[in-house]
Amino acid sequence: MFVGRHAIEVGWGDCDPARIVFFPRYFEWFEICTTALFRAAGLPLHAMFAERNMVGIPLLDVGARFHFGSGYGHILEVESRIVEWKAKTFRVEHRFFRDGGLAVEGHEVRVWAVPDPTGEKPMRAAPIPPDVVARFMDQRVESA
Amino acid sequence: MFVGRHAIEVGWGDCDPARIVFFPRYFEWFEICTTALFRAAGLPLHAMFAERNMVGIPLLDVGARFHFGSGYGHILEVESRIVEWKAKTFRVEHRFFRDGGLAVEGHEVRVWAVPDPTGEKPMRAAPIPPDVVARFMDQRVESA
Amino acid sequence: MFVGRHAIEVGWGDCDPARIVFFPRYFEWFEICTTALFRAAGLPLHAMFAERNMVGIPLLDVGARFHFGSGYGHILEVESRIVEWKAKTFRVEHRFFRDGGLAVEGHEVRVWAVPDPTGEKPMRAAPIPPDVVARFMDQRVESA
Amino acid sequence: MFVGRHAIEVGWGDCDPARIVFFPRYFEWFEICTTALFRAAGLPLHAMFAERNMVGIPLLDVGARFHFGSGYGHILEVESRIVEWKAKTFRVEHRFFRDGGLAVEGHEVRVWAVPDPTGEKPMRAAPIPPDVVARFMDQRVESA
Repeated sequence: MFVGRHAIEVGWGDCDPARIVFFPRYFEWFEICTTALFRAAGLPLHAMFAERNMVGIPLLDVGARFHFGSGYGHILEVESRIVEWKAKTFRVEHRFFRDGGLAVEGHEVRVWAVPDPTGEKPMRAAPIPPDVVARFMDQRVESA
Repeated sequence: MFVGRHAIEVGWGDCDPARIVFFPRYFEWFEICTTALFRAAGLPLHAMFAERNMVGIPLLDVGARFHFGSGYGHILEVESRIVEWKAKTFRVEHRFFRDGGLAVEGHEVRVWAVPDPTGEKPMRAAPIPPDVVARFMDQRVESA
Repeated sequence: MFVGRHAIEVGWGDCDPARIVFFPRYFEWFEICTTALFRAAGLPLHAMFAERNMVGIPLLDVGARFHFGSGYGHILEVESRIVEWKAKTFRVEHRFFRDGGLAVEGHEVRVWAVPDPTGEKPMRAAPIPPDVVARFMDQRVESA
Repeated sequence: MFVGRHAIEVGWGDCDPARIVFFPRYFEWFEICTTALFRAAGLPLHAMFAERNMVGIPLLDVGARFHFGSGYGHILEVESRIVEWKAKTFRVEHRFFRDGGLAVEGHEVRVWAVPDPTGEKPMRAAPIPPDVVARFMDQRVESA
């Protein structure tokens, strides 16, 4: 399975008065890691959205479990995988490691969204193109 | 059960190029709604942390499901409840309504954290004081 | 001159490990206070953008001076005024008070932006409609 | 003069419904670029704060001018310099380039902050150590 790897350095403004990461920041990093994962697979999202006339890949479901906290200056090594593809949605899993330990793990379920042709809604779900799925199925590829 | 109610107006900077709320913002609002819930119960967190020598109430687990998106200028009405108390942790549930529909629902599992007396860790879990739990058990009280 | 007033409670996630507000948050509050100022003048931005086919009111220039820090649970009382109107831009000034003292002061220069009819750019500056300026000139009106 | 260089990729969540960067994000990037500048000079802030018993380097004054907007997927190349050292404060200037053009320029005036020995305030200004200033004066060094 295709594994994206991304390193994050915890910034001063990411941390709260308890001197650990304020938890919503992890979800901003989920977004960044999913973006990095698609780029590593040869599908940069900003180009893909434009080329395929997509609205985006908004979330249906997201969650995280926090095993230990991290603070200013810490380096988090994140592994991201798409573990499931359905017709119109896919599930990403992220694992954040620090100093070899699993600090945080989480998932996202995202939907392939295109403009609603009726104009009644801002977007609607659409089938994920097979060539996109295929990009992540090549076992030999791994993000640097 | 004690129900906290809090209204949130979606701001310009909360929304992304798809013109809907960027999902990590909901978790910032979870934090704000949990803060509002404790205040409504007569336990403002900032004062409680100081008076009881607490580090905070960091998260162990968090999740959300998104039923429909909201955009700039929308008003979200949030209901928050603590649905479970354990010895050292508690579970909060939030429900975000817009125009009468359930837009987002989520949960937080938080831990009662005090300074680690050994100084080896930044904090440790501690038993939740019974008077805190009792504040939320009074059926007659409801947040304005 | 029309004065908008808005109260902000400093949240846990707004503060950094030094236990004071992480400074970019003040600029998020500038946005919120400018939004509140227009609403108080009877011109809610989200409706105005839609009705007048505007892209928004992006910034040309912004600055802040910090006189003393504030922390978790503090209440900031903000006064906002539009101090200058030019043909296509306007200048907003914000003053943040805490416990009667001037904690932060800042300004924004914003431009009236509409879609570029040529489609070459995402937006272009346009003349500010006189009825908008007039709304802020009524000396008798003051935001609650 | 020592020049720090840092590249930033604009993320989805950095952009607003006008499809350009929501301006407070630039100030989060100022923080990140100042952090990168100190690291490039051999003084990583998180280590320096711990070793020298500092509270941090909070801001006294900050400002930015926006020449053109940037959007999702754009790469911003930032140059950062400390252009002035005073006894207890210093001034950083940042210039953001995109596609060779100057998109944003800004400044920060920051203060060297240590714990207040009287305990009355959260921090007080202190003289900047000469060895810190000297690190930035070496003309031969330049960040990669």
